[in-house]
Amino acid sequence: MQALWLENQHVTFCEDLPVPVPPPGEALLKVRLAGICSTDLEMVKGYYPFTGVMGHEFVGEVIKVNTPEGSQHPLLGKRVVGEINAVCGVCKTCRAGRPTHCENRTTLGISNRSGVFAGFTTLPLENLHRVPDSVSGEAAVFTEPLAAALEITEQIKINPTDRVLLIGAGRLGLLIAQVLALTGCDLQVVVRHEFQRQILGEWAIKTLPENEIEERQMDVVVEATGSEAGLNMARRAIRPRGTVVLKSTYKGDVRFNFSSFVVDEITLVGSRCGPFPPALRLLENRQVDPLPLIARRYPLSQAIEALDYAARPGVLKVLLEPADT
Amino acid sequence: MQALWLENQHVTFCEDLPVPVPPPGEALLKVRLAGICSTDLEMVKGYYPFTGVMGHEFVGEVIKVNTPEGSQHPLLGKRVVGEINAVCGVCKTCRAGRPTHCENRTTLGISNRSGVFAGFTTLPLENLHRVPDSVSGEAAVFTEPLAAALEITEQIKINPTDRVLLIGAGRLGLLIAQVLALTGCDLQVVVRHEFQRQILGEWAIKTLPENEIEERQMDVVVEATGSEAGLNMARRAIRPRGTVVLKSTYKGDVRFNFSSFVVDEITLVGSRCGPFPPALRLLENRQVDPLPLIARRYPLSQAIEALDYAARPGVLKVLLEPADT
Repeated sequence: MQALWLENQHVTFCEDLPVPVPPPGEALLKVRLAGICSTDLEMVKGYYPFTGVMGHEFVGEVIKVNTPEGSQHPLLGKRVVGEINAVCGVCKTCRAGRPTHCENRTTLGISNRSGVFAGFTTLPLENLHRVPDSVSGEAAVFTEPLAAALEITEQIKINPTDRVLLIGAGRLGLLIAQVLALTGCDLQVVVRHEFQRQILGEWAIKTLPENEIEERQMDVVVEATGSEAGLNMARRAIRPRGTVVLKSTYKGDVRFNFSSFVVDEITLVGSRCGPFPPALRLLENRQVDPLPLIARRYPLSQAIEALDYAARPGVLKVLLEPADT
Repeated sequence: MQALWLENQHVTFCEDLPVPVPPPGEALLKVRLAGICSTDLEMVKGYYPFTGVMGHEFVGEVIKVNTPEGSQHPLLGKRVVGEINAVCGVCKTCRAGRPTHCENRTTLGISNRSGVFAGFTTLPLENLHRVPDSVSGEAAVFTEPLAAALEITEQIKINPTDRVLLIGAGRLGLLIAQVLALTGCDLQVVVRHEFQRQILGEWAIKTLPENEIEERQMDVVVEATGSEAGLNMARRAIRPRGTVVLKSTYKGDVRFNFSSFVVDEITLVGSRCGPFPPALRLLENRQVDPLPLIARRYPLSQAIEALDYAARPGVLKVLLEPADT
């Protein structure tokens, strides 16, 4: 099968990797559509030393399952999305109800598990969620990043009366903006590009440029720029005793003044993967619209060009479509 | 009056500063006993550019009040401790119920307000709390740092079943240890000195050296070392989705890997000044015992030697006693 391979920060397009064989409890999935995430781009820069097939955002079809029920499995032939952490279920962290932090986890296209920029992939059956018929493939491919956006409201309480600032209106930011807006909060989004202002404007979400951020006024700030610049903006904007949610992962350390953070009694919350079922509900009910985020769609065979294009400033979601075989 | 003056990171002992005149709404206080805090020592190193009389931990006596009721005021002649933030009461932050973060605040011996390493000081009457008769002056002088320790349980919920690690058993750490132990949690304290182990042992609190910290196991970590070394220890010890409380303020920035913090979904909480009434209750009820922390007591006239002594590694609370005039 075709696949995009990452090794030592170098990507190679492979024409003829073997189709993976699902281990017990897992399904073989035909990838229908995959999305390029900022984490993928950071991994190429060396954020995390992964070797293997890249990619973790996808919608696919269940081709085969390796379970005792075999060809009787109800998900066979069905359209699914998949949670990216494959977990052991028995470690202390799993048993404490935090499976996405499983000590023995593998992560689709990120850590010790082949990803989805390929014709086929495998995942445990327990990771799969059927896509409602009314949700298109183009929308369903956004389930994983939309779940990551929902992790924010899973972790912290955002009041309808809160003043909330979102910094970053990129691939993830534009999904976060829609999730935050659903709380009824007084939301402002810091944008860099006119097209971001337009997209958010169509959703009636207020925007402002970086130099108009009010100092020390926000109850909650969400940092989703994908770079360290956002952290200092967040620090300036948050009020004493406010909460800053960090969504960005990128390579390297950051210099930070923890003493001023102590004096202002700020809370910082790291936030990563989120719950799939509510993401699918919001897509099904049309409460979140991911389609304006689609920048371009490439056949998987042009994955390297697609990755280059996705890395340009201001480019939103780039989709990869494996050949229909 | 005698006083210890800080200017440009240089301390001077003054023999003859004028006794302050309390402005309307404030009281003139005779300082009976004052405590040297790590923040004082950090200020001498340049953590914060304060010019004036140093010191903010004290127990004193109300000598005069500048209010319409004047000599009829019930606090006159009484023994008091005082909250260190003098606030405006009308700014947005005060009105939102966060007066210790008042935008216009002055802070005793720290920011725009003369401190307590002096014969006399002034504070707004609303800042004063009467010391119960059964609480000695030596205990009462710990009210402010004990309140800072209680700010932790004011900010976050610590469950009796939580595994909690306290890093740092210094002036503040030994008070925090006692407060944390009151929750019934499974507490361990990282110590550097044998005398810390002994003091904590007498309170039946478990201790361990730094090299025995278990990785990624703690539900809550409190960092109270007063230096950046503690932050990285805290990062190692905390479990995914755990909470790290930061109590230290010190000069300069710290390099920190925010991406791993996002991946593990850690919460960081900055924590500063706390509530005085529960601190006085715990002292009155003998639920916290600050007396083993007293290292030495100096007359105020030897304040410079006292400050030098307090800066030595492992020295706990050094008290200053103004002359009885």
